[in-house]
Amino acid sequence: MGKLKAAVLGATGMVGQIYLQLLSRHPWFELSAVTGKSNVGKKLVEAYRGKGWVPPEYADIEVLPTDPSKVDADVVFSSLPTPVAREVEPKFAEAGLPVVSDASAYRMAPDVPLIVPEINEDHLALIELQKRNRRWDGYIVTTPNCTTVGLVMPLKALHDAFTLRYVNAVSMQAVSGAGYAGVPSIAIMGNIIPYIDGEERKVIEEPRKILGTLKDGNIIPAEVSIDATCTRVPTLYGHLISVTAELERDFTIDRVVDSFSSFKGKPQLLELPTAPSRPIVVLTEDDRPQPRIDVEVGDVKGMSVSVGRIRKGVNERTLLFVTLSHNLIRGAAGIAILTAELLKVGGWLD
Amino acid sequence: MGKLKAAVLGATGMVGQIYLQLLSRHPWFELSAVTGKSNVGKKLVEAYRGKGWVPPEYADIEVLPTDPSKVDADVVFSSLPTPVAREVEPKFAEAGLPVVSDASAYRMAPDVPLIVPEINEDHLALIELQKRNRRWDGYIVTTPNCTTVGLVMPLKALHDAFTLRYVNAVSMQAVSGAGYAGVPSIAIMGNIIPYIDGEERKVIEEPRKILGTLKDGNIIPAEVSIDATCTRVPTLYGHLISVTAELERDFTIDRVVDSFSSFKGKPQLLELPTAPSRPIVVLTEDDRPQPRIDVEVGDVKGMSVSVGRIRKGVNERTLLFVTLSHNLIRGAAGIAILTAELLKVGGWLD
Amino acid sequence: MGKLKAAVLGATGMVGQIYLQLLSRHPWFELSAVTGKSNVGKKLVEAYRGKGWVPPEYADIEVLPTDPSKVDADVVFSSLPTPVAREVEPKFAEAGLPVVSDASAYRMAPDVPLIVPEINEDHLALIELQKRNRRWDGYIVTTPNCTTVGLVMPLKALHDAFTLRYVNAVSMQAVSGAGYAGVPSIAIMGNIIPYIDGEERKVIEEPRKILGTLKDGNIIPAEVSIDATCTRVPTLYGHLISVTAELERDFTIDRVVDSFSSFKGKPQLLELPTAPSRPIVVLTEDDRPQPRIDVEVGDVKGMSVSVGRIRKGVNERTLLFVTLSHNLIRGAAGIAILTAELLKVGGWLD
Amino acid sequence: MGKLKAAVLGATGMVGQIYLQLLSRHPWFELSAVTGKSNVGKKLVEAYRGKGWVPPEYADIEVLPTDPSKVDADVVFSSLPTPVAREVEPKFAEAGLPVVSDASAYRMAPDVPLIVPEINEDHLALIELQKRNRRWDGYIVTTPNCTTVGLVMPLKALHDAFTLRYVNAVSMQAVSGAGYAGVPSIAIMGNIIPYIDGEERKVIEEPRKILGTLKDGNIIPAEVSIDATCTRVPTLYGHLISVTAELERDFTIDRVVDSFSSFKGKPQLLELPTAPSRPIVVLTEDDRPQPRIDVEVGDVKGMSVSVGRIRKGVNERTLLFVTLSHNLIRGAAGIAILTAELLKVGGWLD
Repeated sequence: MGKLKAAVLGATGMVGQIYLQLLSRHPWFELSAVTGKSNVGKKLVEAYRGKGWVPPEYADIEVLPTDPSKVDADVVFSSLPTPVAREVEPKFAEAGLPVVSDASAYRMAPDVPLIVPEINEDHLALIELQKRNRRWDGYIVTTPNCTTVGLVMPLKALHDAFTLRYVNAVSMQAVSGAGYAGVPSIAIMGNIIPYIDGEERKVIEEPRKILGTLKDGNIIPAEVSIDATCTRVPTLYGHLISVTAELERDFTIDRVVDSFSSFKGKPQLLELPTAPSRPIVVLTEDDRPQPRIDVEVGDVKGMSVSVGRIRKGVNERTLLFVTLSHNLIRGAAGIAILTAELLKVGGWLD
Repeated sequence: MGKLKAAVLGATGMVGQIYLQLLSRHPWFELSAVTGKSNVGKKLVEAYRGKGWVPPEYADIEVLPTDPSKVDADVVFSSLPTPVAREVEPKFAEAGLPVVSDASAYRMAPDVPLIVPEINEDHLALIELQKRNRRWDGYIVTTPNCTTVGLVMPLKALHDAFTLRYVNAVSMQAVSGAGYAGVPSIAIMGNIIPYIDGEERKVIEEPRKILGTLKDGNIIPAEVSIDATCTRVPTLYGHLISVTAELERDFTIDRVVDSFSSFKGKPQLLELPTAPSRPIVVLTEDDRPQPRIDVEVGDVKGMSVSVGRIRKGVNERTLLFVTLSHNLIRGAAGIAILTAELLKVGGWLD
Repeated sequence: MGKLKAAVLGATGMVGQIYLQLLSRHPWFELSAVTGKSNVGKKLVEAYRGKGWVPPEYADIEVLPTDPSKVDADVVFSSLPTPVAREVEPKFAEAGLPVVSDASAYRMAPDVPLIVPEINEDHLALIELQKRNRRWDGYIVTTPNCTTVGLVMPLKALHDAFTLRYVNAVSMQAVSGAGYAGVPSIAIMGNIIPYIDGEERKVIEEPRKILGTLKDGNIIPAEVSIDATCTRVPTLYGHLISVTAELERDFTIDRVVDSFSSFKGKPQLLELPTAPSRPIVVLTEDDRPQPRIDVEVGDVKGMSVSVGRIRKGVNERTLLFVTLSHNLIRGAAGIAILTAELLKVGGWLD
Repeated sequence: MGKLKAAVLGATGMVGQIYLQLLSRHPWFELSAVTGKSNVGKKLVEAYRGKGWVPPEYADIEVLPTDPSKVDADVVFSSLPTPVAREVEPKFAEAGLPVVSDASAYRMAPDVPLIVPEINEDHLALIELQKRNRRWDGYIVTTPNCTTVGLVMPLKALHDAFTLRYVNAVSMQAVSGAGYAGVPSIAIMGNIIPYIDGEERKVIEEPRKILGTLKDGNIIPAEVSIDATCTRVPTLYGHLISVTAELERDFTIDRVVDSFSSFKGKPQLLELPTAPSRPIVVLTEDDRPQPRIDVEVGDVKGMSVSVGRIRKGVNERTLLFVTLSHNLIRGAAGIAILTAELLKVGGWLD
């Protein structure tokens, strides 16, 4: 049986590049089309010149306009800029295509699933509702903000074991998270920018939806309060977050480590191709995780979150730790492909 | 009337260098001696070769051993490594010399003042007790850890206005804080190290003493709980801290800004030479303070703390903000010199 | 007598910012107008937000379109992008305005002076010819590429003393040389880009014109062959160049040092406000000049070139050295202002 | 038949780490012992803590003192600091062990081969002479300085095709070349240090020996003059060199590209395990090679040199290009292992 045809919308950015690399060796999907904006009509090898690397077998693929009538696909991955995504993704869904999107445009829409495959694959049930509501033949499924992902995975493990009450997250985010030209070197070399436009709101709201409960076609957000401070630092890949969590129930460090290490979800049970065997890797050395050393930890490069510095705060119910995840893989292209794998197994792709 | 003679112990490190620059243009103090370890017998210009800059008028001063019998001074500044400080500073005090120390060796000793000149100059009264206790003719006064300083100054303003209950600090510290050879480039370029040995304990304990109350010869620590996570990032100068503070009383952002902007202490009243007119500078742009841009803000270079991103958390009594201070000036040599200015005005130096 | 009115075209870029800082404290010129493109109609403080610092007295100046009919000035400084400069600068000259331009558009035009004030102020005589040729009331004077400047100043000293035959220059250029958004952080952090579009041709051609001789209204280029390799490295300010020079005449290192140290020109004789007393500063330590340490060496910040590592090659007539200059000051805004000072003294500004 | 036992002297530094990684998957050699200095008695996993990664199967190996009586091996790799190497390597050779050394101590000794396996494996014949001269049962073979290697490989191709007359090399070297603690972050972040102690002499002398001819037990150095300027820049891995070469014979760019691309040696003919199929990879994009992108180019990670920007100078016989090589692999551990593979095939190891 042949592979499913996969299109990538917005294929010529930082995340697009990762999609191509992951798809080039994927057992279930094969690249059928790429779209762009300023590069329409060019070959991929030209569109990437000076900016990145394209797998040789894709070098001559032509960049198409982002238009459903031009794109032949069984599943569509979108890493479009949010304003474009807002306008274009519904057109693809209307045209009957399943869209898995990294863009933030529809993440918080009540009938759109916001998926971390290990956490809330049951939310995919919203797809039916969405198709009815919007009279679409296709649909949109979204993945979270790249900082949210590395936060919400350990939070899920803690919430299940100890019930979260309050979370305070301070992120130190890599420049690649802002896209190829997103952070000028003059702005960030030897510097920290303690603000990323729009980011904190996403990190505060998205985990509540992801950890929420699907009931009668609605997602009831988890009752956990979150404060977030997002900063940009001069690292290349990997968002590191210092997390403080107030827990409802008593805990020991050993039990926290255990809840992280044993954290698994449907993708591990199903042994999906892009699923790491350990979604959360606990590092025990004092000075880890470090972005340059640990960002690709685990058996599926860039798909595991690494966690370290696990310790109690002054208050008995306060837990402190540091978490690191690959913003372009687990935080974008990788999680979208893992989500598409779930969709395939669930019969949502034909 | 002549200037007071000032000696610098451990003069050939990162902080020692700043002492020399500040003393070279100081109206009250003049450099009388420098001590070192591996550079004993060398001229300063040689000791600094390839590592830093020495004011020309000090180029030919010879580095002495760190021995009170060799040092002629009215006041002694110590930036010795902690183990050396532990052993040597008492010898200088015993020999009748006033020691102002950046080292952590005696900061938490009950009879040793730990001073931020704008906050707790009244703690200098411990000096008399210390001299009696230890039968010293001289004494030791200490200044806080370089990260503590940038944290405790805005905390003092908040504590006075709204009473602190809990503080959570996540620091992103510059490489210069670890000394000239402290952080190998291979370890930190494009990386974050989420741990600094011994640092968090200092950031947790020292503010409680500094904000504490002197009563019957004892310092009653302030009743504020602190959690801290200290990280090293690839910046050169300036420690940035993301702070979450739970306050006892209601507040508005305007009143918080006002408490920061109007924060002043004895050094400002006395118009001490190294006192900035505004110890805390509030920056209102969304993306500030930034280390490379703001570390020298204010009228006395490196002596003001800059604060930004002031906002409420999800909880009404939670305040979030970011603070930045120059780790070598306000965090070390500058605060020590400002402390010595207080000592002089208070009659503690003859 | 009042100051001369100075306008800055393209005032909202990296170089524009330096113009404002230099003009804000200039004894002869005062800022009368600024122009831009995307920021037209905004106040300077808004145009610079998040990108730089504007002297407070200029904060409320409105950005005008780059149109001679809107600009009131006695002299116009242009840091326009080259394609815009090509089109717009002649309009200002035609409208009667003296234009001093950092742009490359007209540098190599036969009737346009390409000036390094210490080297070839006599080339300003071309202005008369240019005005006649082009029937302009105003005129265009240009300054060299930011890498050319740091190279040609020591070359001039060598050429006068020993006659140059061949020069090989390998540059390591700071990111600020490409403008605020010119080099994405993802492209350059921990990296070297061994190519800068169009740069090498400029470094090869411009010195021959600058070192050339004005004869009968023509500049006869100096007979020196140049090879150049231009690279971008992760530094912020200061272009460093490793230079190999083959000389016609015998030399000793002492005499080379002497020719550099004693190098002076008209600006020094005239004691112009922006003239450093020593245009070339020789550093004798083995490991200098270094961009972060030496880029502002000398008595006029950023206007001196520093030179070090002066030594012989395997061949007796080959000289090796390293040169460093501030790309935004000596390489752009500073040299243009120094040139305007020459123009004023020479009676070319009314 | 079993693998040969390989010991690594100085195993706990930057290069030592690479040896372990390369040996952990080597088909012919297996790690039998590691030695160090400050870490003697520790397990490797402890010696590397906070500084690097050790293959799990080696984690519990104990670090021995660098003493031939303690070391069981068929071949010894040395990445000792030069002064230690000078003293210790002869003791290992005397004790009957073949030593392949990255250290510079004996590189220029007349009876010690200085080997680049693709260039001068015939120089290994010096081993017999050396053993006789020094009455050793073992012997010392050396590999070049890490900057020399990336330079001399393209030089060899050019020398064979067009005969070299003069070479000018300007290097931009990564911080890892100086060892783990070799370059403090405060010294190099955002900076360039235009000097590396002792490096230029090595880059000037070593190629002449490597390209030289063995005749009657002597190496007649190649008659090529070299000038070198070595600089340290803020990159992690990969030394980039801008090269200017004056050639004896006419050339075209096509023929130069061809001479590079077709460059091969004994290791390729013998298909040695660590031999890349293309020792020199020519990159045709304008802005390559770049350290972060190209340092691992080719089929054996870190073993190919990449070359780009190939062009003529002003003079017809002058060739300009840029070369990049991995300083820890092709420049140290990898070349030593490839050399040992040659030794094995040549019957020099039993």
